[in-house]
Parts: sequence; structure tokens; C-alpha cells
Amino acid sequence: MKLYSYFRSSAAYRVRIALNLKGIEVEQVGVHLVKEGGRQNTPEYRAHNPQGLVPALELDDGTVITQSLAIIDYLEAIRPEPRLVPADPVLAAKARAVALTIACDIHPLNNLRVLNYLKGPLGHSQQEADEWYRHWILEGGLDAVEALIEGGRFCFGDSPSVADICLIPQVFNARRFKIDISHLKKIEAVDRHCKELPAFLDAHPRRQPDTEI
Amino acid sequence: MKLYSYFRSSAAYRVRIALNLKGIEVEQVGVHLVKEGGRQNTPEYRAHNPQGLVPALELDDGTVITQSLAIIDYLEAIRPEPRLVPADPVLAAKARAVALTIACDIHPLNNLRVLNYLKGPLGHSQQEADEWYRHWILEGGLDAVEALIEGGRFCFGDSPSVADICLIPQVFNARRFKIDISHLKKIEAVDRHCKELPAFLDAHPRRQPDTEI
Repeated sequence: MKLYSYFRSSAAYRVRIALNLKGIEVEQVGVHLVKEGGRQNTPEYRAHNPQGLVPALELDDGTVITQSLAIIDYLEAIRPEPRLVPADPVLAAKARAVALTIACDIHPLNNLRVLNYLKGPLGHSQQEADEWYRHWILEGGLDAVEALIEGGRFCFGDSPSVADICLIPQVFNARRFKIDISHLKKIEAVDRHCKELPAFLDAHPRRQPDTEI
Repeated sequence: MKLYSYFRSSAAYRVRIALNLKGIEVEQVGVHLVKEGGRQNTPEYRAHNPQGLVPALELDDGTVITQSLAIIDYLEAIRPEPRLVPADPVLAAKARAVALTIACDIHPLNNLRVLNYLKGPLGHSQQEADEWYRHWILEGGLDAVEALIEGGRFCFGDSPSVADICLIPQVFNARRFKIDISHLKKIEAVDRHCKELPAFLDAHPRRQPDTEI
């Protein structure tokens, strides 16, 4: 399988963690989101993913699966162990809700295409775009996640789930933009713990084939 | 079970369709998103859902599940028939990807809280907010969904899935804001077909206990 990825994409980062946790090897194909106006916008890439976003997983028969959380559920179906969605329906729903809080209500608002729209057509300054970014990471975002997770070593229970897989890349983004999250004690503890695990370490944006310093 | 809902919320509309398809009855509790500065922002409601968003499903033991797609997966777990996620892993991934394209990359950008932020702190006019709305419904949104779905009676195959459950409320929103989607032929056909089904009809914003004309 091939994973269309970009080292700094937090949605691609989620899929890299899931692949590592399940021990599935794929070929990574870097899609540079900035060079040449964004290579995700080329007709060649849009033929794979009409949304023009990464990640996308191409199966060996050429079928392409888009959307990080759909890819993770696909991986769960073809390689059930270790589980990334808890077996208990209520716990599964709680883990999925945290993943979706991040994947729906934080990340898309702060995505490159949205920041470009704010600074381009809407004429906002970098400072206003940064304040937008900070606002949506916290308000109804990580502030809510802090209340929703159990905390401890992982968001829920004793093994990483789809909640942790979405949380760690979002914390990386928050730190990258120097957003203070030191009041989010459970999130900081989960982040510290996950960072000790090879599956998370090896998925880090600094360690990918297409990484730029 | 209780569903915290708002008649016009397209995320709540999704859950109402799923409940109807599965024949699960719940008590609907209206949370008015506009009156009194938005009742989703009260401490009472935030105690149920720290995100301050609808929908939220309260189980009989008081546990609350947030996020429409997490609620739908929970319903799928406790009442597996009729299936809302196809059994085949690839088809399941495709249906989930369409649902997530709408739930992540269209809806949160056009949510009330975001439109309020554009018109409030960022000082944009109603016309600029409307153009923002139109842009994200189409670009990488329904334009991509049109390419991703098979089409026919439903998005995929011969029965409604989570893809249709997310699509129909999004089409309702597009029409409400008078956005021309007549070039999206597959979407229009699926919308026409779903509108004939009682599960979709009864979930419509005009037919809820808290509906206002």
C-alpha cells in the first residue's frame, strides 16, 4: 500500500501512528503542500483524492481511501490487533468522540487551506490568523478534550486508542504555534507518555522520508 | 435515552436520521442555539457536553456521548441492523470517508460559532460570511463528494449508509443558503431518493418538537 503524506500534516501523522501501532508497512509518497502552490492541487494528485488533501491510502489494486479516520477504521478492519477502538461500545464512543472533536472541530479550522483563505481573500494579517489558530485549538477544542478524557497513561484505559492517535499530533501543532496548554494537565500527561512509545516517535514529523528541517 | 438536539443543526439531523433508520426512540431535548446568547453555552449544558455543541446522546445511566459520528457508531454497536456502515471494509471506508468529508471539512467551517467569529471579532459583513459559507460547501466539499460517491439510489449500494446520513443534511444547508448545486448530478439524485424515505422525512428540521417556522 502507498500512503500519500506530508511530514507536517497532522492528519497524515495520525495515520502514521496507526500504521506503526499495527505494524503495517507502507510506501510513503510525499505530497508537498507548499511548493509550487501546493502539489495536492495538481490534476495528478486530485485524480487520487478529489479533495486535494493528505493523507490518502492507495491499496494494491489502486483503490484510494481518503480521510484519516476512515483510513484508521480500514486498518482496524484488516488488522484488528492491537485494537485502536475499544471493544466496549460506550468506551469506543468516548474514544471516537475525542478523535472527532479534534478531527472535526479543531483541525479543519486551522488547516493550511483555511489559513490561506483568511490571509488571502479575507485580507487578514499573520497575527490575526495566529489568533484564529489559538482560539480554535482551545475553545471547544483541547479545553473540551481535557474534560472528555479519563487521563492517566492514555486518554482512556491502558492502551493507545484513536483518541491518543488524534491528540498527539494536535498537541504537536499547539506547541509548534507556541500555544500555552500547561493548564491541560491530563493532556500533558498523555502526551508525555505517548512520546515514549516507538509507534508515536517514529511517526513524528521530524522523522519522515519527506521531512525538511 | 435523551437526544440533546436543535431542529436546524445538521449534526443533530444526522443522528435523527440514524435513530429513525434503526427504529430507536429517544426523548428529544431542544437546546436553542440562538436564544439568550445560545443555551448550548450555559453551565448546565456544558456539564453534559463540554464542547457546548449539539447533538449529545444521554444514556439511561447518565453517560453522555458527544459528536454525531461517534453517536452513530454507538447506535450501530447496540442495534446492528439495519447496517449504516457497509460490511465490506473497502466500501465501509469509502462511506466513512464521504461522511468525514462532510463532517470534518464542510460543516465545522460553516458552523454557527465560526460564522459568529467571522462577523464578530473579525468584523466581516454578512455578504463575506455568505461567500465563506458557499466556498467551503463546494471547494473540497460537495464537489469532492460528487467525485467520491458511486451514485444511484444512495451514495453507495442499495441501502442508506452513514454517507447518505451526512449528505442529506448538508444538501439541506446548501439549499437553505441558496447555493447552486445543480451541477452535482449524483448528489441531487441521492437527495431526491432519500427524501422519499420516512426515516429521512421524519428527521427533517421542519418536523421536530423544537421546530420554529
